[in-house]
Amino acid sequence: MQAYATLTATFARLGALEDASGILGWDTQTQMPDGASDTRGEQLAVLSVLAHEILTDPRNAERFDAAEAEGQLGLWERANLREMRRAYAHASAVPGDLVAAASRAATRCEMIWREARRDSDFARLRPHLEEVLRLRRLVGEAKGAALGLDAYDALLDGYDPGMRRARIDPIFAELRAVLPDLVAAVRERQAAEPSPLPLPGPFPVEVQREIGLRLMRAVGFDFARGRLDVSLHPFCGGATDDVRITTRYDEASATGALMGVLHETGHALYEQGRPSAWRHQPVGQARGMSLHESQSLLVEMQACRSAEFCAFLAPTLRHAFGGEGPAWDAENLHRLYTRVEPGFIRVDADEVTYPAHILLRYRLETAMIAGDLTVADLPGAFNDGMKELLGLTVPDDRHGCLQDIHWPGGSFGYFPTYTLGALAAAQLFKAACAAHPGIRPGLAAGDFSQLRGWLQENVHARASLMETDELLIAATGQPLGAQDFLAHLRRRYLGAQG
Amino acid sequence: MQAYATLTATFARLGALEDASGILGWDTQTQMPDGASDTRGEQLAVLSVLAHEILTDPRNAERFDAAEAEGQLGLWERANLREMRRAYAHASAVPGDLVAAASRAATRCEMIWREARRDSDFARLRPHLEEVLRLRRLVGEAKGAALGLDAYDALLDGYDPGMRRARIDPIFAELRAVLPDLVAAVRERQAAEPSPLPLPGPFPVEVQREIGLRLMRAVGFDFARGRLDVSLHPFCGGATDDVRITTRYDEASATGALMGVLHETGHALYEQGRPSAWRHQPVGQARGMSLHESQSLLVEMQACRSAEFCAFLAPTLRHAFGGEGPAWDAENLHRLYTRVEPGFIRVDADEVTYPAHILLRYRLETAMIAGDLTVADLPGAFNDGMKELLGLTVPDDRHGCLQDIHWPGGSFGYFPTYTLGALAAAQLFKAACAAHPGIRPGLAAGDFSQLRGWLQENVHARASLMETDELLIAATGQPLGAQDFLAHLRRRYLGAQG
Repeated sequence: MQAYATLTATFARLGALEDASGILGWDTQTQMPDGASDTRGEQLAVLSVLAHEILTDPRNAERFDAAEAEGQLGLWERANLREMRRAYAHASAVPGDLVAAASRAATRCEMIWREARRDSDFARLRPHLEEVLRLRRLVGEAKGAALGLDAYDALLDGYDPGMRRARIDPIFAELRAVLPDLVAAVRERQAAEPSPLPLPGPFPVEVQREIGLRLMRAVGFDFARGRLDVSLHPFCGGATDDVRITTRYDEASATGALMGVLHETGHALYEQGRPSAWRHQPVGQARGMSLHESQSLLVEMQACRSAEFCAFLAPTLRHAFGGEGPAWDAENLHRLYTRVEPGFIRVDADEVTYPAHILLRYRLETAMIAGDLTVADLPGAFNDGMKELLGLTVPDDRHGCLQDIHWPGGSFGYFPTYTLGALAAAQLFKAACAAHPGIRPGLAAGDFSQLRGWLQENVHARASLMETDELLIAATGQPLGAQDFLAHLRRRYLGAQG
Repeated sequence: MQAYATLTATFARLGALEDASGILGWDTQTQMPDGASDTRGEQLAVLSVLAHEILTDPRNAERFDAAEAEGQLGLWERANLREMRRAYAHASAVPGDLVAAASRAATRCEMIWREARRDSDFARLRPHLEEVLRLRRLVGEAKGAALGLDAYDALLDGYDPGMRRARIDPIFAELRAVLPDLVAAVRERQAAEPSPLPLPGPFPVEVQREIGLRLMRAVGFDFARGRLDVSLHPFCGGATDDVRITTRYDEASATGALMGVLHETGHALYEQGRPSAWRHQPVGQARGMSLHESQSLLVEMQACRSAEFCAFLAPTLRHAFGGEGPAWDAENLHRLYTRVEPGFIRVDADEVTYPAHILLRYRLETAMIAGDLTVADLPGAFNDGMKELLGLTVPDDRHGCLQDIHWPGGSFGYFPTYTLGALAAAQLFKAACAAHPGIRPGLAAGDFSQLRGWLQENVHARASLMETDELLIAATGQPLGAQDFLAHLRRRYLGAQG
């Protein structure tokens, strides 16, 4: 097992470097003084270059074959070797110069984007975004040539291993066919109900933080191996055995930070639940962004916006904030947390209208990577799509194609994972509740133990042992599909049975 | 300049790796959850191994000669090359296996030491300390063979480049000859004065922190490139343009955390004042631990325990804590901050008795490295020395040879830099005040600008351009010596003139 052992040592080193970058990344968002951004950039660049050099060492390729020839590899070891090959293929497919150029262009474009969004000035962004797109297409083509994929699938594979447009297209077509009527029906139903009462504030940050910590504990976050902090943009980051989630507080609103914390806690459970025996090996990593998003959305959308959990949460909030009156009733809280209203901003969207934002972005970014849509035509295409999919007239690009950082940052191929994650969340939650009828009643008592146990066994502990569809079939009996998500929406928002 | 340019690129990479480790080290002490210590250890070990591999690449040695042959190097470039050679010589002198073994032994011994100190159980520590000493002697001998030094000087050179026992011995002999009588005279004088009144507490942490931040600003700390945080053991760490100091608060005492903050701020000014053009190059680093300690002691001992600064600080404290009565007078505060009393614990010692703790440790560690003192004989030798130098009978090893982490952590050769720093601080402060008569009156108004300007020009901006003695001669007209320190003590504690 000489070659295999050498490979695991190499990838353990890579894992430690990635962990170091994870902590530095967390620090950048939560602690770093402004004047340190240049020196931090140098630190992260050096770590990334060193990792790239270690990963693309041509001796690794020889060792993959030698390790296979050695035989004696068990199930996990074989999967580990498969994931090593995938990482190597992605990294070695792209010439170092192109990696560096794409990274520099994205960094510059992100900076310009912050100003362009603020000023709703797409013309300012355009040449920079064109350059980012040009380089990302080259990256996609280079990876595609090595992996036997087209450029978009190659980029997608970097975020969600094994995912392909051929899998996404029919699923998204089903959502496109069903959702507009479903949104209209929900809106009609909610218009006939009493409007939810806003919770009266203010809501002191310290109290919000205390509730957040208590709920994290209830969901199962392990504070011996993680933290909660504050950042401008909430995220789940950090390192192995050191999972750090963030939120931001608004004294005028009690509900935003809280659901943010629960969302990131879902991500964190996945990271904390990865098998410790494989912690620094590729097979020990989370499977991909769709499954990762499924874990955050399962906790936030499936479990914590349920009527059951609202029955637990409402008295908790009432007591913590000293609230009085009907706004603090569980029914009102549930209405607040399940309000459906088409809007311009993706990150503010409810779970029923959210997929429309993704369908649009997926349509546009596949066209851009294929060369069928130019950056110059992007604002018009974006606005046409918002009209078609959500019936909204975009007032300016700040509320349109300038709202997200993904494209300026070069993340083409990332958007679909949000909605694929929502579908997987519905599928997994349904299977978990079927296996453990006590899960839903548990939520009403703030008890997540059965749900967590099922997720641990069926998702977290499996890490990257299986491909996403294999894992979903093992856990739910079905590959990824829209049926459970749509049934969930009909049940929660239209009162359908079952 | 091909070879020189390649070397600067290599050392810039090393500088970024060191900075990354600096931030991770800060995080370990201030943020990291307990359960992450293993994974953090792996991160730091990988960064350190990678840095060692990059530094000891044999091609570097060829490039040193090639760079010199290229000519055209200016003053700073030549000094940079000299420091590169020094770093390479230290790192390549020791076989990788020995580096790793010494590091592992020290890590284990530090852990055992925490329990042994708590239980005052030297027997428990002894075998581990023997192993650490054995390996550090091997390291010293290996470095010594490469550098043409004996083992102790080779270890010392790692903390304070260019420092040698031959320089230290006569200076310490002078202190040994003078200090016992001086301590006795100070004690007699203070016994005849009114005892200082303790400041009545409690002192809320938030108020202490606010005062600390205000004083840091006054001294000149740049918060755009640094932070103040809390840790069990105060330190100055972080990275280039990201200097992070820590303190710990005690609600029962207003004075400890404050002087700790001022001490670390002195270290921080040095780090923040290094020349940005050389920030990631060896010549751009601080000169060594003696000069580093001189900067912290200059701010804390020379400037901030002066009667002038106490005149500024007393009303600040009185106002912040809402204090009333004579305890808050400047004279009383000055008496509190200049109280002399021999004690067992080095880190609690005043500036008059502190050198005795260092003379003892220097005597013992030189003997241990030379093989003239065994670990088994250490407690007895330590206690004999405390009796001889400070007239104290050590009650148990917790108050004796178990109090410091340095030897368990393998830091033989570090202790003398504390007292060498105190001497340099007195020398530099005297020269600064002679150059700018406004410095002392400035302290009475909380104005450090002239002092900071002089330090910036004469110490910080020079980084590692000169050897320590060269720098002191350029700044003060004298190489390192005890005369200004002793004159300072006689002036402050015995009322001597001048």
